[in-house]
Amino acid sequence: MAKPIITLTTDFGTRDGYAGAVKGVIKSINPDAEVTDISHEIESFDVLGAAFALNNSYRYFPRGTTHLAVVDPGVGGERQPLLIRSEDFCFVGPDNGIFSFVFQNEMITDMVVLSNKKYFLAEPSTTFHARDIFAPVAAYLSRGVGVNEFGRAAKKCFKLVIQEPRLSKGKLRGEIIHVDGFGNLVTNVAAGSLGGKKIAAITVGRRRIKRLARSYSEIKEGEVGALMGSSDLLEITLNQGSAREALRSKVGSAVTITFK
Amino acid sequence: MAKPIITLTTDFGTRDGYAGAVKGVIKSINPDAEVTDISHEIESFDVLGAAFALNNSYRYFPRGTTHLAVVDPGVGGERQPLLIRSEDFCFVGPDNGIFSFVFQNEMITDMVVLSNKKYFLAEPSTTFHARDIFAPVAAYLSRGVGVNEFGRAAKKCFKLVIQEPRLSKGKLRGEIIHVDGFGNLVTNVAAGSLGGKKIAAITVGRRRIKRLARSYSEIKEGEVGALMGSSDLLEITLNQGSAREALRSKVGSAVTITFK
Amino acid sequence: MAKPIITLTTDFGTRDGYAGAVKGVIKSINPDAEVTDISHEIESFDVLGAAFALNNSYRYFPRGTTHLAVVDPGVGGERQPLLIRSEDFCFVGPDNGIFSFVFQNEMITDMVVLSNKKYFLAEPSTTFHARDIFAPVAAYLSRGVGVNEFGRAAKKCFKLVIQEPRLSKGKLRGEIIHVDGFGNLVTNVAAGSLGGKKIAAITVGRRRIKRLARSYSEIKEGEVGALMGSSDLLEITLNQGSAREALRSKVGSAVTITFK
Repeated sequence: MAKPIITLTTDFGTRDGYAGAVKGVIKSINPDAEVTDISHEIESFDVLGAAFALNNSYRYFPRGTTHLAVVDPGVGGERQPLLIRSEDFCFVGPDNGIFSFVFQNEMITDMVVLSNKKYFLAEPSTTFHARDIFAPVAAYLSRGVGVNEFGRAAKKCFKLVIQEPRLSKGKLRGEIIHVDGFGNLVTNVAAGSLGGKKIAAITVGRRRIKRLARSYSEIKEGEVGALMGSSDLLEITLNQGSAREALRSKVGSAVTITFK
Repeated sequence: MAKPIITLTTDFGTRDGYAGAVKGVIKSINPDAEVTDISHEIESFDVLGAAFALNNSYRYFPRGTTHLAVVDPGVGGERQPLLIRSEDFCFVGPDNGIFSFVFQNEMITDMVVLSNKKYFLAEPSTTFHARDIFAPVAAYLSRGVGVNEFGRAAKKCFKLVIQEPRLSKGKLRGEIIHVDGFGNLVTNVAAGSLGGKKIAAITVGRRRIKRLARSYSEIKEGEVGALMGSSDLLEITLNQGSAREALRSKVGSAVTITFK
Repeated sequence: MAKPIITLTTDFGTRDGYAGAVKGVIKSINPDAEVTDISHEIESFDVLGAAFALNNSYRYFPRGTTHLAVVDPGVGGERQPLLIRSEDFCFVGPDNGIFSFVFQNEMITDMVVLSNKKYFLAEPSTTFHARDIFAPVAAYLSRGVGVNEFGRAAKKCFKLVIQEPRLSKGKLRGEIIHVDGFGNLVTNVAAGSLGGKKIAAITVGRRRIKRLARSYSEIKEGEVGALMGSSDLLEITLNQGSAREALRSKVGSAVTITFK
């Protein structure tokens, strides 16, 4: 039988050994677990960034994979420690919006607030729940402990509101919701929200883009273009450069689409 | 039986393939070894930084884990290549202080200077012992080769001196010994060195902090605070920001504690 | 039997989840594959940098390892998706020069242009072939699918021209071809091209270096020196610092060697 996989998505970096501690805890509890890094390089405290990284990757893992995701500025405070089970995956982390896309895309079967200390490290700290609570829970889960052993059902969970693009006077007004590592500007305009209409122009700041390319290489080197990216969202891109730098755009910047 | 784990802690980065070469050597000698990254992002030549990362993580791994740690500015020179065995773990790397906390915290049973070329790559370079000496030794060790096969007993080993905080005129004078990736300032003030006394104020530069928080989230967003961090050392922190940037502090900066 | 290893070398970073998606796809197709990161931190679009990273590491992995390498500015365009088999390894990635050193060093037995959609993800995107084409091909390959199942034989493949140093008027004129993460300047001067002659001086910019050190530690701290690096190429180095910063040199800068 295949080994259980536990993926990690955090803002810990690696240079302090915090991510290493999480791996060690998991392997100590379940030596058979296969620990796989999605990222430890999420920007510090960027919960939405972690939600994106997870959304771009979680569904490609085998059924039964547990995804541990911890960007947790509220550690030790009011926010609840969470275990979510969907039809295909489990998710463990803080209830602060990091699983927003999971709630949007998955059939959730269970949501549990972690409270059973039997499955925590002894004397958990108030500063490092990834090591002391989330890692051991993920490890016990991967050993087959039932979801309801970990605590009581969660009544409601926190979800970040991702603004939908709005259609007004024939123009679709969206915004940039993520900037990726290449400097591509990912918008909230999904393929579906174009309604099959033909684009006349896409405007970002002062830049007008007149057509949708099919691939990065269709855009001339050094030129700004637009395409439907690998997450099926409209992306503003600069072939072999950074659209973020060229357009001085950032998360929240407006993107306006007009149609033929 | 569980597979043997070998962890890696280096300042190699990953973009040159040096860390990849280390992994390849290990897997070629022992295909059953499970290679786990603690970090390849230690700052170049920062031996103490590597010692911290290791100290924050090594003890969470299963008994029997081998920790390979190489920040090695003296490679090819006088410093000795080392294998250390404690009751629970093995450690392989240069004798330059990288294992300072290991000596402090572990019951050491063996210290061996690596000299048996049978367990090195053929014609080891003078510039890359991680690949040519430390990786193969760790791999053979994980295959069950006895510690004393690798060389002669080491007479003494190098240990970095971590300054202890000093009590003078009722004030505890410590210093910052590490800055983590979030910009938290980790001091040399352990919970024990407070002697159970109640803190009146913690002073760093011009900033006075009047109480010890229990968690990051107890501190208001954007405010500087202090707490006992996940390694049980006093930490100066800025909720959802970088205390390093706000206080312009660095390793060596003074931290003074007064008591009620 | 040892598990099949698939290594990853990309410029994706990790924070967007793109590398995570690649790992997930591989594990979903072949749960037995062991996925190992060489790097996801190659500079964006730096095909030659990826070729170096791969060259510094691929040959240390066990026979039978598959190396997936994707720095792919031309994704979705004319460049062909490639599978290469040599006597010891397989390589999967775009035909854009990323395998230049592989062609130089390996006995190639097969080169195949990937075209059999049976081994792609359904409806592959035009923007993310690593996830949709290269990862599944590597995974099926590791499950034992024959090389020729994936497509037709490639007629010719793209190879970056790495300038050889030239001997002129008794001087050997080379150049810097790579700067590593420590700031070491790696040149195109291989040990062999010195022809056994004794070096009188090595000149980089205004700096003259009068001898070849055997190891980094032979050079005084803070001084610039030269040595044959771990890839058997002449390297300009600054002990415990960055030669790149000290000499303001970069890829393409001239290096001149005079002999005794």
